Amino acid sequence: MEEKTAATSGEQKRLLRALDGEMLERPPWWLMRQAGRYLPEYRTLRTRAPGFIEFCLNPALASEATLQPVRRFGMDAAILFADILLVPHALGQKVDFGEDGPILEPITEGSGISGLRQAGFAGLDPVYETVRLCRAALPVETALIGFAGSPWTVATYMVEGGASRDFRVIKAWAYRDAHGFGALIELIIDATVDYLSGQITAGVDAIQLFDSWAGVLSEASFARWVIEPTRRITARLKERFPNVPVIGFPRGAGLFYQRYAAESGVAAIGIDTAVPVAYARDMLQGRVAVQGNLDPIALLVGGAVMEEEVRAIRAALGGGPFIFNLGHGVLPQTPPRHVAALARLLAEPVDRA
Amino acid sequence: MEEKTAATSGEQKRLLRALDGEMLERPPWWLMRQAGRYLPEYRTLRTRAPGFIEFCLNPALASEATLQPVRRFGMDAAILFADILLVPHALGQKVDFGEDGPILEPITEGSGISGLRQAGFAGLDPVYETVRLCRAALPVETALIGFAGSPWTVATYMVEGGASRDFRVIKAWAYRDAHGFGALIELIIDATVDYLSGQITAGVDAIQLFDSWAGVLSEASFARWVIEPTRRITARLKERFPNVPVIGFPRGAGLFYQRYAAESGVAAIGIDTAVPVAYARDMLQGRVAVQGNLDPIALLVGGAVMEEEVRAIRAALGGGPFIFNLGHGVLPQTPPRHVAALARLLAEPVDRA
Repeated sequence: MEEKTAATSGEQKRLLRALDGEMLERPPWWLMRQAGRYLPEYRTLRTRAPGFIEFCLNPALASEATLQPVRRFGMDAAILFADILLVPHALGQKVDFGEDGPILEPITEGSGISGLRQAGFAGLDPVYETVRLCRAALPVETALIGFAGSPWTVATYMVEGGASRDFRVIKAWAYRDAHGFGALIELIIDATVDYLSGQITAGVDAIQLFDSWAGVLSEASFARWVIEPTRRITARLKERFPNVPVIGFPRGAGLFYQRYAAESGVAAIGIDTAVPVAYARDMLQGRVAVQGNLDPIALLVGGAVMEEEVRAIRAALGGGPFIFNLGHGVLPQTPPRHVAALARLLAEPVDRA
Repeated sequence: MEEKTAATSGEQKRLLRALDGEMLERPPWWLMRQAGRYLPEYRTLRTRAPGFIEFCLNPALASEATLQPVRRFGMDAAILFADILLVPHALGQKVDFGEDGPILEPITEGSGISGLRQAGFAGLDPVYETVRLCRAALPVETALIGFAGSPWTVATYMVEGGASRDFRVIKAWAYRDAHGFGALIELIIDATVDYLSGQITAGVDAIQLFDSWAGVLSEASFARWVIEPTRRITARLKERFPNVPVIGFPRGAGLFYQRYAAESGVAAIGIDTAVPVAYARDMLQGRVAVQGNLDPIALLVGGAVMEEEVRAIRAALGGGPFIFNLGHGVLPQTPPRHVAALARLLAEPVDRA
């Protein structure tokens, strides 16, 4: 296969060409958590707002955080600087960010969504303003990715009150009262479609849905609480915005990746580090674009380790629609010079023999 | 297929018959963490030793903890009450159990295994004594399972100094210096074979290897740090004890389960809740016995939810060699009466139509 020339592909951004099913000689790339604590300029910027939500809802600061990594490393896409817990925040739930992660006043099986219904979804206008500022500042060839958490993952925080080890409270609710729990998922679906529509209207080119805790469910629960809500979100977005592709990232989905790719309606699938690249090529790439999956620790280590891993991933996935990324977010301890080295590496053509 | 009669199967314990590849009409069953905090009699017993390691190394207390669930519920197997971190403890590493989990003085990439080599493997005689006490007290039809952690999982605690979210330190070491890290894995392999040989000599009928953190690795790392050490342990045990089967439980192994089943040398594979039962039947059960995989939360919820999940699992896996278990350990919040209900449910024949 040959990379299409500018004449045949128009001036479309490289990320969108891959999401459209095109194979590119040099894969478009970006990194989950490419904006953030590993960058000294981010750590400086972060001090300018006391709270993390305040930071996310300050368009000047959030747009600057979004642009910083692209300015340094020239990724093919910027991803909006925000947090998946802005949705519960805008639904009226109390959300705090502590040293050890987020703390929420949990939605309980007893009270259900009654408190949230009264509050309603307030919308997130400052985020849409951040999108506009980014759009205006980004080079034309750089895509801007908007995002939200998937309903299941957002619900885990809303119900467990933060990160969880065993997902005991939320899973027990879902088993005991699928109807009541389903109402919470519905509410999140609606808010997410609103929120993402706002981001798209403000100017993002593509959407990523983060489903960080997709991997803790049994098959029937995965179908009901991961695939089905994702399918409804992608279908409703596609109706309004047929040209804005959605990347799904059901982290840890393991043996469910294939079914997710087939049924969720996403244009691309993000694969974590535990997905064999040959499997992704043979079983997923024929249906959707594949994004991933360098181990964030290989980026942290850098050097020959990183080079070898990158080459293996490109060799396996470079022959089809492919976006280079990590299998999980950039770790705060990552030396920025390793990201620069990765950028150089990805600029080289690769032998897929 | 018909269940063999006592005449053809001899007096062999039901668990061992399933591990030997036999299909049984009512599956043999036991539960990971079946001894422990959800049982009031365990909580009482636990107060009789101040520290957790002290408790594990007290044969009278540890054997009583082992026997308690079998006495109450009549599982087909007891599993030795112990902890996977007894191996680092016996290797001379400082191990403490706090409220939030274990804390170890970490082995570092710099010092490597030099401190451990001096200490050597002290052996764990009190554990072998616990085995002898259990063996003497258990009904003849009840199997006794010994266990250890798999080298990768034990190493994560030894190097990270406790539970980890990102496995950054250990993975960075393994990438940067596979030879030095490999020496630590070798040391754990040797200690584990010694330890399990001691358990077998003292009277356990089967072994389970717990690899709780098998799911965080890329394919090449999974092959090197999960499959290969497991293969070496099973091979060395098989040489000395050809009739003692090993159950491997590479939790979260997702797309690697099949390769693990094919290459690790285990007689049975424990599957977590995220493994579709149809996949386990079609892709694993032809090669090894399958053990699993009820969601511990379904046991916690009990009632019709549990019944439905149990029926689906038995319907899919009951037609081949199968041991009923959870997909992860019993949660401390589980009502003991739900375990009693499970025991009754598993005593019923099932229609696999």
